[in-house]
Amino acid sequence: MKNDEITLRSEDFAKWYTDVVSAAKLSSYSSVKGCTVLEPNGYAIWERMQSILDSMFKKSGHQNVYMPVLIPENLLKKEGELINGFAPECAWITEGGKNTLEERYAFRPTSETLFSDYYSKNVKTYRDLPKLYNQWCNVIRWEKETRPFLRSREFLWQEGHTAHSTSEEAEAETHRMLDTYKEFFEKYLAIPVITGKKTEKEKFAGAEYTLTIEALMQNGVSLQSATSHYFGQKFSRAYNIKFVNKDNEFDYAYQTSWGSSTRMIGALIMAHSDDRGLVLPPKIAPKQVVIIPVKNDEKLISICEHISESLESKGIISYIDYSDKSAGYKFAEAEVNGIPIRIEVGLRDLERNEITLVRRDNLEKQTINLNDVINAVMQQLDKMQEDMYNKALNNLNEKTYNAKNLDEVKEIMENHPGFVNAYWCGNEECELKMKEIKGTKSRCIIESEDYEEEKCVVCNKKAKHKVVWGIQY
Amino acid sequence: MKNDEITLRSEDFAKWYTDVVSAAKLSSYSSVKGCTVLEPNGYAIWERMQSILDSMFKKSGHQNVYMPVLIPENLLKKEGELINGFAPECAWITEGGKNTLEERYAFRPTSETLFSDYYSKNVKTYRDLPKLYNQWCNVIRWEKETRPFLRSREFLWQEGHTAHSTSEEAEAETHRMLDTYKEFFEKYLAIPVITGKKTEKEKFAGAEYTLTIEALMQNGVSLQSATSHYFGQKFSRAYNIKFVNKDNEFDYAYQTSWGSSTRMIGALIMAHSDDRGLVLPPKIAPKQVVIIPVKNDEKLISICEHISESLESKGIISYIDYSDKSAGYKFAEAEVNGIPIRIEVGLRDLERNEITLVRRDNLEKQTINLNDVINAVMQQLDKMQEDMYNKALNNLNEKTYNAKNLDEVKEIMENHPGFVNAYWCGNEECELKMKEIKGTKSRCIIESEDYEEEKCVVCNKKAKHKVVWGIQY
Repeated sequence: MKNDEITLRSEDFAKWYTDVVSAAKLSSYSSVKGCTVLEPNGYAIWERMQSILDSMFKKSGHQNVYMPVLIPENLLKKEGELINGFAPECAWITEGGKNTLEERYAFRPTSETLFSDYYSKNVKTYRDLPKLYNQWCNVIRWEKETRPFLRSREFLWQEGHTAHSTSEEAEAETHRMLDTYKEFFEKYLAIPVITGKKTEKEKFAGAEYTLTIEALMQNGVSLQSATSHYFGQKFSRAYNIKFVNKDNEFDYAYQTSWGSSTRMIGALIMAHSDDRGLVLPPKIAPKQVVIIPVKNDEKLISICEHISESLESKGIISYIDYSDKSAGYKFAEAEVNGIPIRIEVGLRDLERNEITLVRRDNLEKQTINLNDVINAVMQQLDKMQEDMYNKALNNLNEKTYNAKNLDEVKEIMENHPGFVNAYWCGNEECELKMKEIKGTKSRCIIESEDYEEEKCVVCNKKAKHKVVWGIQY
Repeated sequence: MKNDEITLRSEDFAKWYTDVVSAAKLSSYSSVKGCTVLEPNGYAIWERMQSILDSMFKKSGHQNVYMPVLIPENLLKKEGELINGFAPECAWITEGGKNTLEERYAFRPTSETLFSDYYSKNVKTYRDLPKLYNQWCNVIRWEKETRPFLRSREFLWQEGHTAHSTSEEAEAETHRMLDTYKEFFEKYLAIPVITGKKTEKEKFAGAEYTLTIEALMQNGVSLQSATSHYFGQKFSRAYNIKFVNKDNEFDYAYQTSWGSSTRMIGALIMAHSDDRGLVLPPKIAPKQVVIIPVKNDEKLISICEHISESLESKGIISYIDYSDKSAGYKFAEAEVNGIPIRIEVGLRDLERNEITLVRRDNLEKQTINLNDVINAVMQQLDKMQEDMYNKALNNLNEKTYNAKNLDEVKEIMENHPGFVNAYWCGNEECELKMKEIKGTKSRCIIESEDYEEEKCVVCNKKAKHKVVWGIQY
């Protein structure tokens, strides 16, 4: 079945995506070029994400702070690689009040500089460490092309910035936060991910190394979904974060940063939604159940209210659609909005003491006895979460390939793209050759060793890394 | 008793304030002129405020959204009064990436323009109304002088923006949100407030009228703490928010906006704290109870952990100070950080099956039997919240005066400032005369009628309004 507002995935995946976003009223274009409005339905998903991630961060001892959005140009320039990486996409504030500023400010593209500056003033001994800080904020990167959630000039994100007294502890933090993101994606967003290290070319400007989680969308395109960076002492030397260690000697702090953004909403949409619109996993859906009285009838409504209250007592978020629209219209609206479970309460069903339960992911209808509604809803929410994960995992497995040479890579990426496992010698030239195939890029290194048998997929020289490659958003 | 880090209130109130902020590590100066860092302890208070206000907003049907931070200059200029009010304090983005922009963007000082622009595209009939939107975000106003929480170039706030089909409904919303703020201040922050309408001179640029809540600090200085504006059709006409009403006629929407900011943290500090540092009402304190083992002893720590778990099961947020600092140091630190209740667990007390409970507001020590700890804590948290409100109310009542002429106003403001009730003719000239007395300004109009007997406190002509006056932050 097809929803008239929504292009079919098979016809035009990119158009389908923006249609799903519009139909579910998640986001809309604004009068500000390259910036979007996060509408109530979209922002509510972001709030769910924030609330879950925030409590995961806090459980592992992180604290929230807020740093200024303005970064003086000179402060930004202290770490050379960072400024080289970000300067081309910075927005600059050059006037304040009625005056031209003596020094221009960058609108933060990321906040390593301000956190490092803060740590340089507040870290004196190992007793001041670790600092495990995070902030939720807006950033700007002056992109040319924009797509809702995936790429826009301003976006919302969280950026963790930590400082440690040893490299071991900082590296453990880098991995721990990667695992946190992986858990969040798999458990809450029902999206399986692969994890690994970025290549030198793809790592974050200024990092020693970058770890990433990569997800595969329904159309086989991959999406970098969250990253965790190990900085070693690069920033602490540039910003002078010097402390006295346990041996009473001076050392520079070891730092990490890690971030995830509203882009995760894009991942959610492209991983799960269908030709009828948005599909949301129950654990991230802001509203889990809609209860629809098929007629505007007092008895029906009182049953609906009873069900809603019982669900609430079990911690399930439901709402009743009281509007004066037709039942069919309400069903379609619930579908397009991705409400995981729809309960239809009609007069004829009620005579048999029954209601109809419809799952959004598989559109299966079940007739449920009124006494079993709450249990059935709870079971189906769990089942749906599991089924959605498994479906996405099947997609990932089906679309993961091995390639031995460039022809094989080409055949895959041109006809049925996905993740391609292939060995690589480690040279950037070979990475650039891969890019000629529909923009294929290394997603992450999943293994590195001194391979005796394996050859680089491009140059056929001795391989250093096993890499997952993909076409990226 | 005196804390060495903290200036006495009686010596220098302004210095005392910044000392309390630093000692409690709420906020610190950054390398960005006019901007501060919200440190973990300060940000945690903001999170509590957000969480409570946000659920109050949602209960009354409001939804969160996010609008772009950039406002194109032409869009900002559409409503003349607003731009006149805000242009002198806007920060301007003039460069993006490597290019000079064709049109400069203001960093949002407030978002009436973007909400109105959005509504103009999304409101077509009365069925699309009301729109009850709110956003949590950062704003910039290019202030010259800055003080932590009270005034800084960038600050965090929430701004509600609503659109309605009738003026009655919009005016009711303006009052309802004022009442929401009042309830929040009185119930959670334990700060009594007065409410009323701003004079023409003091109202928000572009509003038909502005309602305000005003609080009185310990030193008799008043603080505008949150505002709620009625716009009528001023913005909807400028931005063309046109809709078909129930009578099938075109009309322009009726709008409101309302806001509160991190400035509330400043109010909290100046209303309650003392010469030993921060004092926080239990309902807003991020950590309500600290449990301190007087010695690093296994048995003591296991008792502490038992107490902490029991408190958690009652929804009370506690933590154990495990650090290797001396007990005296821990006590002082808990004081300076404003933890409402401190529980001291010592060996000698334990022999008698007792612990010591100390309330932060009055520093009273109580010996409590181990079996009664949880009840005692719950009782004392409630009592403390009530006592703090009553103390602040006493301060407000004691420092509220009536004045019949300028000499009386002068005597009060110069010697023992506070709120002064005085009649006023309604002319701006008389307001400006009042300002010559230590910057006294109208806080709000509390009554307006055709007074026969009452005279303006400045010009002695017939009074139109009963006004509360005060020296402002």
